[in-house]
Amino acid sequence: MKIRVTVMLKDGVLDPQGKAIGHALDVLGFHGLGEVRAGKVIEIDVPQSDPAAAVAKGEDMARALLANLVIEDFAVEAAP
Amino acid sequence: MKIRVTVMLKDGVLDPQGKAIGHALDVLGFHGLGEVRAGKVIEIDVPQSDPAAAVAKGEDMARALLANLVIEDFAVEAAP
Repeated sequence: MKIRVTVMLKDGVLDPQGKAIGHALDVLGFHGLGEVRAGKVIEIDVPQSDPAAAVAKGEDMARALLANLVIEDFAVEAAP
Repeated sequence: MKIRVTVMLKDGVLDPQGKAIGHALDVLGFHGLGEVRAGKVIEIDVPQSDPAAAVAKGEDMARALLANLVIEDFAVEAAP
């Protein structure tokens, strides 16, 4: 089954990419935006067919490779 | 309210970043993985308080800036 790992910078960590996107959106006419934060999403087709086991495997992958736990948080969900 | 825009390469478009992640996971001992695809997620705090209006605004932003519609698909959802 497919899982989706979402990796975002932790709250409080400066996000220059998000800031740049927010500025560009404002220039394009989307005014009044609050915080904009950018992150990564990785979709992985795992061999596990049980959703709980697949999500647990995704969490192992995030801790081993996909997220830098010093500055990033991650969330794993079964993909639709 | 917050919205989340997810941008992924379209099916059929070569995803070298996803391939590299899949290879690295295999080297780390996560064997038997199928396709791995990498994308972007952008969380935006929009002034709209109505979820439908906020999502519609997010779709406008994706079309204007966040996604390259030639090679990428996007999805917008109200963030939790």
